Amino acid sequence: MLKRKDLLGIQDLNRDEIVEILDTAESFQEVSTRPIKKVPTLRGKTVINLFFEASTRTRTSFEIAGKRLSADVVNISSSTSSISKGETLIDTARTLDAMAADCVVIRHSSSGAPHTLAKLTKASIVNAGDGAHEHPTQALLDALTIRQRKRRLNDLKIAIVGDVAHSRVARSNVHLLTKFGSHVWLCAAPTLMPIAMDKIVCENSEYLHLTYSMDEAIENADVVMMLRVQFERMSESFFPSIREYFRYYGLSRERAERANSDVIIMHPGPINRGVEIATDVADGAYSVILDQVSAGVAVRMAILYLLLGV
Amino acid sequence: MLKRKDLLGIQDLNRDEIVEILDTAESFQEVSTRPIKKVPTLRGKTVINLFFEASTRTRTSFEIAGKRLSADVVNISSSTSSISKGETLIDTARTLDAMAADCVVIRHSSSGAPHTLAKLTKASIVNAGDGAHEHPTQALLDALTIRQRKRRLNDLKIAIVGDVAHSRVARSNVHLLTKFGSHVWLCAAPTLMPIAMDKIVCENSEYLHLTYSMDEAIENADVVMMLRVQFERMSESFFPSIREYFRYYGLSRERAERANSDVIIMHPGPINRGVEIATDVADGAYSVILDQVSAGVAVRMAILYLLLGV
Amino acid sequence: MLKRKDLLGIQDLNRDEIVEILDTAESFQEVSTRPIKKVPTLRGKTVINLFFEASTRTRTSFEIAGKRLSADVVNISSSTSSISKGETLIDTARTLDAMAADCVVIRHSSSGAPHTLAKLTKASIVNAGDGAHEHPTQALLDALTIRQRKRRLNDLKIAIVGDVAHSRVARSNVHLLTKFGSHVWLCAAPTLMPIAMDKIVCENSEYLHLTYSMDEAIENADVVMMLRVQFERMSESFFPSIREYFRYYGLSRERAERANSDVIIMHPGPINRGVEIATDVADGAYSVILDQVSAGVAVRMAILYLLLGV
Repeated sequence: MLKRKDLLGIQDLNRDEIVEILDTAESFQEVSTRPIKKVPTLRGKTVINLFFEASTRTRTSFEIAGKRLSADVVNISSSTSSISKGETLIDTARTLDAMAADCVVIRHSSSGAPHTLAKLTKASIVNAGDGAHEHPTQALLDALTIRQRKRRLNDLKIAIVGDVAHSRVARSNVHLLTKFGSHVWLCAAPTLMPIAMDKIVCENSEYLHLTYSMDEAIENADVVMMLRVQFERMSESFFPSIREYFRYYGLSRERAERANSDVIIMHPGPINRGVEIATDVADGAYSVILDQVSAGVAVRMAILYLLLGV
Repeated sequence: MLKRKDLLGIQDLNRDEIVEILDTAESFQEVSTRPIKKVPTLRGKTVINLFFEASTRTRTSFEIAGKRLSADVVNISSSTSSISKGETLIDTARTLDAMAADCVVIRHSSSGAPHTLAKLTKASIVNAGDGAHEHPTQALLDALTIRQRKRRLNDLKIAIVGDVAHSRVARSNVHLLTKFGSHVWLCAAPTLMPIAMDKIVCENSEYLHLTYSMDEAIENADVVMMLRVQFERMSESFFPSIREYFRYYGLSRERAERANSDVIIMHPGPINRGVEIATDVADGAYSVILDQVSAGVAVRMAILYLLLGV
Repeated sequence: MLKRKDLLGIQDLNRDEIVEILDTAESFQEVSTRPIKKVPTLRGKTVINLFFEASTRTRTSFEIAGKRLSADVVNISSSTSSISKGETLIDTARTLDAMAADCVVIRHSSSGAPHTLAKLTKASIVNAGDGAHEHPTQALLDALTIRQRKRRLNDLKIAIVGDVAHSRVARSNVHLLTKFGSHVWLCAAPTLMPIAMDKIVCENSEYLHLTYSMDEAIENADVVMMLRVQFERMSESFFPSIREYFRYYGLSRERAERANSDVIIMHPGPINRGVEIATDVADGAYSVILDQVSAGVAVRMAILYLLLGV
């Protein structure tokens, strides 16, 4: 069991906790391969998916995780919620607490929203993405995927390429991977790179590297993690065109060959084929994108179990 | 068990039925405090949440209530329903009946919509709010909260303050509380008060009082129930401004002190902080707003059980 | 068990398979009449309802079917899905597969979308309507309703009236009913009739008849199946007005009397009262519209069971 009520970010987890989550997730992976993919572990627990931003992937992953553990799962999305009636997030949280929710999985566009909730609720809060801040279950499922392919989380060269400045996925991954002593190379166009190094707070900054050159980031990389291009930011003219973007920061087959011969290619999804990643790379032999999705269900089962289990 | 198929309003319930619902709800409150918050009572029953108006609170409360009783719960909201294809409400209801739904929980903007359905279906119909008419489960959860705090439902002075004219919450509460011999003081601005006394049909009109003065309503009150300001009605200029509204009909700390020293402060939620109620009052020692939410799950479990239980 | 992974259309089913589905559905009809409407058959299976077009009726029917078989059912609708983020359908399908979904029920506006998915997934794909192509569970529930009323599927005269050109319901029904040796009369206004006979591919074309005359189609019919008028097509001026439409292709009481004395009147729903069918016919003694709805749950239980059952 985790000795904490909530999962708010990777930054405040220590390595032992992360290892415990990954080990637990690994044991849950087997459940999803059974003919009867269900264990009674969380019977009678109430899990609320409270999503203020649209997300099929993450919401569905948590819903499936909860149901495979026999929890009761209730979905609330912002379009149908009282938020449209002007209720504060705090009142929504207290209300769910008063309904004896055991866990609230929240995605919100504001950094820190889950932390605010966590202070007010008895229910466990799980951060499913808060603004440009953290997306801890994504980093955990990435770590599980890397560990299963590379047999370790330390001494790797990991390139993270794309809109680093606005990416909660990048941020959570930096925290996790540098904690374990891997070298993370953040690569972005100048307009999409955090203005100052200290924008990425990171305990072990000797493991963190920034570059505008994708070739430098990828050279001998063990892992290449591509970030999703947010088209809404494109329109703010951070970058002139998709074609231009792909030329400098897209992952083509040729470019992928600069990495280690046993590189794995990752992406949090949903992918933009031909924008940040070429189709033959996304579907190629080095791609572990679908393994990440599978790991996601297992990691979320582990989180729910470790926070709510008896 | 209730000797009726449907729960359509408070007006047609007698005191014995109300007491039976509240007693049953009280016994279900314990379920939500267990580590395993689930009983098999309604296993294999199908409950449909048919919501034509957005509502997190009520829909979620019914969904949780159904799931804790082990019913299968299916949500239908108007945005995704055939209604957008022009189907009549009656055809929707008959269709759900043909699918062997055991219970349809309906919220609709038209007064009387649940009654129309009830005549046509074998399924039990539960009114989760119909226009400005009734919201019986709200009045029942309010009654449970009052009974648990005041140890009685009779001989109380209860002030209901706000947009009385359009409030189904006020209407259902008037029916319930006057049946038990409590005095209900309805307080609203002239533009938000029912034009004629007889707009609130009430068997025991000697228990019903109307006033434009909040001080008069609150004076020595045992219970103060604040209604939500509907901003869409504000824009119809029923009232000049929020600040003006709060001055005359908002519940400030100073004003709350005119009530009895053991007053309880209620609100059906979601609350508009600083509009109809001050934040320090909503979060203060006399507020039972979150108890109402908890009572809501128990009352809805009781209703589903009493209508569908074997 | 069906010796196939997917249910994509009626065209590729043989008569033995159809009979097996109908027989299985018949045995499941009893489940929905029990006090406890639930069997443990699909416990631990994950069924995804992936709806890119709004549909209460079909989505709810599949959801109830899945839950009565004890499957875990997860709903995804296009408005809340990653599709709005530009993900391809193929990536959505692969993602659901990676989450170990056992079955994906898909409705999509593009003909052939389910077939594309089926090639890529381990999960069983069930076509819940693809463009103007097929809607196989609708034809199966129609067949079950006909068989239960007429005691046979052969040697019947069946009139299908309405927007034949764009109707996946008509198409699937033509495939099914002509396979069994019934005569299908398709009747539509010239603008709503398939341009060429070969638009309806049909193995047994001697059983297929086209007419612009509703009287000819209905004369001595054993079954009259009315199609829903799609108002969005009306606006494209396929037909001058609703009144005009009803005059030529609406089912009035007088017109219904031209059919056999034991005719049954069918409609896939949702119905437009007074447009394609008169209210007294829709609600009359010959109408089996609500039987179709009931049959729908049973047929979908049968499909899920036959594709996923052990």
